[in-house]
Amino acid sequence: MTLQALLRIELPIIQAPMAGVQGSALAISVSNAGGLGSVPCATLGPDGMREELTRIKAQTSGPFNVNFFCHKPPTPSPEREAAWRAALSPYYRELGLDVNAIATGRGRAPFDAEAADVLAEFEPAVVSFHFGLPSADLLQRVRKWGARILSSATTVDEARWLEARGADAIIAQGLEAGGHRGIFLSDDLTKQVGTLALLPQIVAAVKVPVIAAGGIVDAKTVAAAMLLGAAGVQVGTAYLLCPEATTSAVHRAALKSEAAGHTALTNLFSGGPARGITNRVMRELGSISALAPAFPLAAAAMGPLRAKAESDGSGDFSPLWCGQNVTGCKEISAAELTRELAAGFIRSQPQLLS
Amino acid sequence: MTLQALLRIELPIIQAPMAGVQGSALAISVSNAGGLGSVPCATLGPDGMREELTRIKAQTSGPFNVNFFCHKPPTPSPEREAAWRAALSPYYRELGLDVNAIATGRGRAPFDAEAADVLAEFEPAVVSFHFGLPSADLLQRVRKWGARILSSATTVDEARWLEARGADAIIAQGLEAGGHRGIFLSDDLTKQVGTLALLPQIVAAVKVPVIAAGGIVDAKTVAAAMLLGAAGVQVGTAYLLCPEATTSAVHRAALKSEAAGHTALTNLFSGGPARGITNRVMRELGSISALAPAFPLAAAAMGPLRAKAESDGSGDFSPLWCGQNVTGCKEISAAELTRELAAGFIRSQPQLLS
Repeated sequence: MTLQALLRIELPIIQAPMAGVQGSALAISVSNAGGLGSVPCATLGPDGMREELTRIKAQTSGPFNVNFFCHKPPTPSPEREAAWRAALSPYYRELGLDVNAIATGRGRAPFDAEAADVLAEFEPAVVSFHFGLPSADLLQRVRKWGARILSSATTVDEARWLEARGADAIIAQGLEAGGHRGIFLSDDLTKQVGTLALLPQIVAAVKVPVIAAGGIVDAKTVAAAMLLGAAGVQVGTAYLLCPEATTSAVHRAALKSEAAGHTALTNLFSGGPARGITNRVMRELGSISALAPAFPLAAAAMGPLRAKAESDGSGDFSPLWCGQNVTGCKEISAAELTRELAAGFIRSQPQLLS
Repeated sequence: MTLQALLRIELPIIQAPMAGVQGSALAISVSNAGGLGSVPCATLGPDGMREELTRIKAQTSGPFNVNFFCHKPPTPSPEREAAWRAALSPYYRELGLDVNAIATGRGRAPFDAEAADVLAEFEPAVVSFHFGLPSADLLQRVRKWGARILSSATTVDEARWLEARGADAIIAQGLEAGGHRGIFLSDDLTKQVGTLALLPQIVAAVKVPVIAAGGIVDAKTVAAAMLLGAAGVQVGTAYLLCPEATTSAVHRAALKSEAAGHTALTNLFSGGPARGITNRVMRELGSISALAPAFPLAAAAMGPLRAKAESDGSGDFSPLWCGQNVTGCKEISAAELTRELAAGFIRSQPQLLS
């Protein structure tokens, strides 16, 4: 089955769910253009979810994707938290903030029964997960209304694992991709593989359709991915400058600057490895730090620094998520960008040209 | 100008120079098949060079490539060397070796006037360099007989640097590639980029032909690279199982095993970052260690461990150079493999099919 038939979409272009830089508006534009728009729900509570899903349901008749994290929440370690705050305290002093006023909260929560209940009110056509899959029980609830299940694999082993547990299609997330790595079977970052090597190996390893992600930024890279066996592509970074995205001013400025040429995997902003533009805090603490608490706990102490710096127009403490190629970022509508990307799909299918 | 015209070859397939696992035999097979065979000279003295170049000159009328390193030899640090030996001494004890008997030598030497003299006797059509380019003076000597100059870029900045200094074509070495990273403008490994992201950005940044390397393993990946603007490809890993390669028995066994699915950048074997299959010493010391002396000095102390372990049939201390996709490795002649790869080039040029 083609990815288009599986997901009931016209164009095999998936807009990557990107928590923090987009809501329903971006997804609506993509879904209305014939692609698959995605609404990231990892950082929304039930009310936020309802609001976003009501909006998208009202503004597109096309299918859309609702995305969740499904990490295992870590046991907080007071020692690690203290070490992390100590590492950040010089910055708190510099910015005139009180390190003792850091809010403690659960932070990003994994998909749970409450989220499944809200989801059931909307019955989205596609539900995608990052960091593996939720329990079989939760997955079953999502399947009830016929939703197709997607998840990301960063290794061949993860792809096989996802297929065995019933993922309907697998996103092969190459090392070039911006944002959080979907890695879940290992914490060894040396196992992460570039898209050109990962994609054909996952295509060969599983029977379900494979969606290429990481370094897919324009029609040419879409065509290359299709040639390598992808059934479709997932694109994130290229959408970040679209007017429908909620990308912050400092983030937009960074994407348009030379700084965007140097990204790195960093765990400073959440505790989990994610690719972003190298900024001051990454340079000074090292982009991967053993001091950062486990995902998602590192975010709590970094948050106030980010907020204060951003209010002063600085991205020194912001997660400037970004893939390894920003040349596809354009300040055009997400619908137009989706159609431009789709030209690569059409180019790769000579029979569509005749 | 096409890469074929520039290098006077029939097929735009370059066999990557791979010091330690091949000599002239592999290059002869590739050049005779219409590709560009490469003879790695980084570890050969003048006599070894003469021997290899005499052999290839006698056995192919086609052009071939002679490869050199052009790193700046580091100033040895007695403290660092002592720390390195201390880190390795438990292994010396385990294998019954004397840590005080380690030979000191210059190790891999950069391209110099002596090498240029030997080269002038043979006037090879192509000379390639790793880690930048030699001095303008040395480069001029190579140019005298009309040799084309190639070098590797691992970033867009390196590509621009090489073009400005007269490289005739640039190898875009993506992060997937096996063996030593050609990185030379920085030692920050976070700047290393996957092939799918690196290749089109280098193609856009320079006017000279760009050769794709890293993750190119079969006709399909060759076609994808050409679609992304490559003028040709450089393939290493896929040739490692060819009978003409001198790949060791432990290395061949590793390439055929499941272990080949997990490579990492490591500096343990030479001091410079290079991609190889994760083995015991990489797992135990960490694949990148601050204890390893600068390139190429780390090799001296690792050498005896490697030799002893290999004589016992173990690759625990061997550099098992390998890219992130071994699915292209085949036990067929290098000539046949070259023709199989070239099918991807032909597929990418519809006019050649009519």
